[in-house]
Amino acid sequence: MVSPFLSVACDLANKSLLLTSPNPRVGCVITRPDGQILGQGHTQQAGGPHAEVMALRDAAAQGHSIQGATAYVTLEPCAHQGRTGPCCDALIAAGIKTLVATNTDPNPLVAGQGFARMRAAGIDVVVLPPDDPLAIQSRELNIGFFSRMVRKTPWVRMKIAASLDGKTALTNGASQWITSPEARADGHAWRARACAVLTGMGTVRADNPRLDVRLVDTPRQPAVALVDSRLELSPDAHLFVASRPLYIWATGQNDHKLSELEARGARVFQQSGGHSQVDLAAMLQDMGRLEINELHVEAGHRLNGALMEAGLVDEFLIYLAPKLLGQGRDMASFGPLTELSQALPLVFQSTQMVGPDLRVLARVQGRDQF
Amino acid sequence: MVSPFLSVACDLANKSLLLTSPNPRVGCVITRPDGQILGQGHTQQAGGPHAEVMALRDAAAQGHSIQGATAYVTLEPCAHQGRTGPCCDALIAAGIKTLVATNTDPNPLVAGQGFARMRAAGIDVVVLPPDDPLAIQSRELNIGFFSRMVRKTPWVRMKIAASLDGKTALTNGASQWITSPEARADGHAWRARACAVLTGMGTVRADNPRLDVRLVDTPRQPAVALVDSRLELSPDAHLFVASRPLYIWATGQNDHKLSELEARGARVFQQSGGHSQVDLAAMLQDMGRLEINELHVEAGHRLNGALMEAGLVDEFLIYLAPKLLGQGRDMASFGPLTELSQALPLVFQSTQMVGPDLRVLARVQGRDQF
Repeated sequence: MVSPFLSVACDLANKSLLLTSPNPRVGCVITRPDGQILGQGHTQQAGGPHAEVMALRDAAAQGHSIQGATAYVTLEPCAHQGRTGPCCDALIAAGIKTLVATNTDPNPLVAGQGFARMRAAGIDVVVLPPDDPLAIQSRELNIGFFSRMVRKTPWVRMKIAASLDGKTALTNGASQWITSPEARADGHAWRARACAVLTGMGTVRADNPRLDVRLVDTPRQPAVALVDSRLELSPDAHLFVASRPLYIWATGQNDHKLSELEARGARVFQQSGGHSQVDLAAMLQDMGRLEINELHVEAGHRLNGALMEAGLVDEFLIYLAPKLLGQGRDMASFGPLTELSQALPLVFQSTQMVGPDLRVLARVQGRDQF
Repeated sequence: MVSPFLSVACDLANKSLLLTSPNPRVGCVITRPDGQILGQGHTQQAGGPHAEVMALRDAAAQGHSIQGATAYVTLEPCAHQGRTGPCCDALIAAGIKTLVATNTDPNPLVAGQGFARMRAAGIDVVVLPPDDPLAIQSRELNIGFFSRMVRKTPWVRMKIAASLDGKTALTNGASQWITSPEARADGHAWRARACAVLTGMGTVRADNPRLDVRLVDTPRQPAVALVDSRLELSPDAHLFVASRPLYIWATGQNDHKLSELEARGARVFQQSGGHSQVDLAAMLQDMGRLEINELHVEAGHRLNGALMEAGLVDEFLIYLAPKLLGQGRDMASFGPLTELSQALPLVFQSTQMVGPDLRVLARVQGRDQF
């Protein structure tokens, strides 16, 4: 009887996809030994209750006692005092007899302590093996959270819209639009699940984009991150969207511009050391400290190429339009390589038609082993 | 009861995929009114019996009378004396009462005459509407035959092996191998169904390929067609494979080389008119006269680009390897375009994993309306 309820818990976790950032997306189901569901819930927005507390409240609201019940959760209950109290203590206090979980929490503040404290309280704790499909599914849902906890940097997903022959723009720069409205809406759905959207000044100069989520409903806007070595962003740029953070990485010193951008609400990370280019690996470390789990990259071929060449991209979300453009701008300018064995090796994760376009999700080999 | 037996007839037609060229791939099932199958068959190699005759022979071999029976065929029975006698007469003589067919034969020598002659003999003739799935399926199986009959030129399918970012080789030319052994074997299966494989002298100089079918079993080898404007092919080239035709299109005059190549068995089409480049549209007309139904193109970016720019490609068979190469050779060098609306518009027909690679079949919009 493990899988059916854990599967329901995974479905609940999916419902929190756009909500919980930077916390993990978690679902919880509490059942009686005879299989009746007593309560269920999923994690709310950061600072709000976690899945376990939501499920306990749901059971209480229906007048159910959960003495002797089983709790199914898609991540180890937290054991630390964060924005909310430790969930493992709430489950112990409520009288849970058995806990079934898909995964150990990679958070060093938890990392088995939640399970240990529950076992010490006499609760039977069952954890799925890491290769169980539901364990994989709940890690996948939180791939950005696992990345940040384990590597201290975000999961970097690069979105590219191109023609079938790999061109993202004509030679003259024309690129709006290569892909369909359906693909663009789908791209907004992927933006919505990210903690931040990253772009570069080339894109800002060319398109002056907002990079917010407009084509799908969302309870929150992701932050925007900008690589702007020389601090050239205009305070009038469309990137300034109320109610979301704007982070800028720069190398140049420009105190006047700095004040101007900070007055508009931007937070500027100035890298010293005299390099003309932003240290992108250091930027990802900053992003880890900013609690960015999933970073959604929508940039031009230069920043794309620099991120790829530095080995910093984990996953590619590519929309291929059913057309051929011939000469034009490439997906990424890096190289030239001298041997095929130097190619960046990927694994296709999924392919799906989105309107007339083909969406391909491909992951750098071995990058998802958390 | 139409569809089940026509569906069986379509399955039989599929069995003749590698066999019948340049004749169409056709299946036939003959049934009694109570639904018992009396005989079935599919078209054999050119000069051998057609599907209808195979099914009649099958019924006779089992001692069945087919008086009053129904014949299901995936193409109108032929009405002309070709390499074999007219199938419509054979069905009439055998006493068929009803004929159910998926499509009218586009061959101007048939084009409804088969049906007319059978109706005149008192046979009920039912033809599927052109948008019936089985009608579409049997036209698709014979898309090259329909193309040659209607347009007088082959169906042109261009095969490309590339990285996910659309590169077919590194800047230094290295391209063996970008895709997997599985994808290369699948490519041979597509070669096998073609009447001819087309390449250019750039590819011959770089790779000296055989371009025959080796990685899958086949009862016949497709012809090879070569664009060789200046008649530079060496008589020692690997393209000379016994037991298959080699066709060469050239513009230059070189009587010595001509004799040398013809002595090796090649057939040379010398285009006059003083152009330095082969007239590719005229070449396709020649190919129509050579009874080439499906032309499988495996060429470099120059010939690919020239065929695309001339609007002569009908379909793209693209293997995308899960890797990124950055700078390198494009799928096709044409353009630059100045507006996105000038792009060659395609429709994705299918996508499928082949080993670790993604196979994409995409067709030029509206090109398959026969």
